[in-house]
Amino acid sequence: MLMDNKAADQIPDISDIISAMQRINGAIRTTPVLSNTQLNADLGCELWLKCENLQRTGAFKFRGASNAIALLDEAGRQGDVATHSSGNHGAALALAATTHNRRAWVVMPENSVKTKVQAVRRNGGEIIFCHATQPAREKGLAELVAKGCIPIPPYDHGHIICGQGTAVIEMSEQVPGIDIILTPVGGGGLISGSAIAARALISDVNVIGVEPEGAADTALSLSQGKRVDQYPVDTIADGLRAIVGVLNFEIIRDNVDKVITVSEAGIVEAMALVWQRFRMLIEPSSATVIAAILASPDDFSGRRVGAIISGGNVDLENLPFKT
Amino acid sequence: MLMDNKAADQIPDISDIISAMQRINGAIRTTPVLSNTQLNADLGCELWLKCENLQRTGAFKFRGASNAIALLDEAGRQGDVATHSSGNHGAALALAATTHNRRAWVVMPENSVKTKVQAVRRNGGEIIFCHATQPAREKGLAELVAKGCIPIPPYDHGHIICGQGTAVIEMSEQVPGIDIILTPVGGGGLISGSAIAARALISDVNVIGVEPEGAADTALSLSQGKRVDQYPVDTIADGLRAIVGVLNFEIIRDNVDKVITVSEAGIVEAMALVWQRFRMLIEPSSATVIAAILASPDDFSGRRVGAIISGGNVDLENLPFKT
Repeated sequence: MLMDNKAADQIPDISDIISAMQRINGAIRTTPVLSNTQLNADLGCELWLKCENLQRTGAFKFRGASNAIALLDEAGRQGDVATHSSGNHGAALALAATTHNRRAWVVMPENSVKTKVQAVRRNGGEIIFCHATQPAREKGLAELVAKGCIPIPPYDHGHIICGQGTAVIEMSEQVPGIDIILTPVGGGGLISGSAIAARALISDVNVIGVEPEGAADTALSLSQGKRVDQYPVDTIADGLRAIVGVLNFEIIRDNVDKVITVSEAGIVEAMALVWQRFRMLIEPSSATVIAAILASPDDFSGRRVGAIISGGNVDLENLPFKT
Repeated sequence: MLMDNKAADQIPDISDIISAMQRINGAIRTTPVLSNTQLNADLGCELWLKCENLQRTGAFKFRGASNAIALLDEAGRQGDVATHSSGNHGAALALAATTHNRRAWVVMPENSVKTKVQAVRRNGGEIIFCHATQPAREKGLAELVAKGCIPIPPYDHGHIICGQGTAVIEMSEQVPGIDIILTPVGGGGLISGSAIAARALISDVNVIGVEPEGAADTALSLSQGKRVDQYPVDTIADGLRAIVGVLNFEIIRDNVDKVITVSEAGIVEAMALVWQRFRMLIEPSSATVIAAILASPDDFSGRRVGAIISGGNVDLENLPFKT
């Protein structure tokens, strides 16, 4: 029997993440970690990629969605679920819901990556398109909730945060002695779960988040000491265009060492590098963590770095680099 | 101390493959195996992909090259090495040689995939281009050998075969109870090593090879009861354009249940499917094994299938399918 989980609007702790791990263990894939000796020599650090691009639905989001849906089952709450998502959370929620005999409704910005739209549909989700703004996304979701759907937001939700944190439980077992955990920051689901898990499980670890310069709302929020709720987002990293969540900001403020920003050119260079050296196509969002090392190698010099590659859902027709 | 290995022109046995595993264990990556519940339901079998596309140099070839180079060291043979290769063996040999302080010379057909040419160079190999024919490849290699290079051919070589067979040692531990081992067939290095390992380690296993219709020299050789040494090759699967080797044909004839052929359209469909369902870009050569299941699902129905995904070195500009 699992421990009771905290309510979704509470900040979780490591015991909640550990019970999430037990809850979703049979549903998720234990994703591989990869390192490349030559690349490590070039970068001057020991880089390990936690390949959530190879997670089911092609992104870490399936961890959180699986946990949230399983907790609905445990609580005996019947009904359809709904969310807004640029795609990865939507596809993940659709798969988690479908395999638990629920329907999932997904509000998606009309500029979503095509492959992500297809993935939501393939996993049995129903899509409602909206304008590509945060208010439009939230309004779309509110309308579904008004119709009776249970909202499972993409990141500002304790059960989602716990599921995402399970990636760091795995990585801490796969790669002993990590010095730095590095994750992208969009809405903050991945980094907040990762930070709670890392603080509890890895001694003397630094937790660093990475945002595109064009979506640096979290870095701005940290510098201002309070969460900004608007930001003129402009980035190729479609998975990181959301504004950091309320719970997420609190967790980041208290548990993350710093959030750094990377350029658009740096993101593209990092995508190309990962393709070249690992033969994996990763999302621009994921490439931010590699861009951070390329931009400031001295900050990582000699350290063992666990970088979460958050997803691999890209449109092959629009790749921003060539072989 | 490792057992002595048989000479390179002898047919190896399982003890040679096990000692290859011990020899190269620190150099190679233990590649992940991936399965997809939904896809399994669609296909009607339990499919496991052994992801050699995520091996160092992006292909299984690094296993054989590492074993062959390490055995030269053990034998005290100094000097440069040379080979002919459409790319993957060349890049693998270059990396294995460089990390053992040797130079590697690679004869490559002038129509080689660009990303494979880059990989040979990145791994420190010297390239000599030739016409895209088997005689031209062999002539180029003979000239290098005349200059004193040690030839490490891509498949017709016992030490290479042993290295390639290590993929099945890993897979037999990662996925218990495999019913069918499925591998692409080009020169026959992968399938011959795989077949010897599978026969010894997995009870009641079927070993099936897959060739493109446009490079079906091994199937033709089996049907004629002797190795053909010419075939009008025409296939998108650039890694499978070689004629089956002499040692390889003997091993295949005695250890492989059958070699089946797949269409070019089937190969492309399978590449797209693996991208869609696993978010991995794989070579056309690798996609043959999935194409085989798509073409004849009844032959795999209800079985646990271990399919070796041989490599992931594709040119992004020339993908034969869209998202």
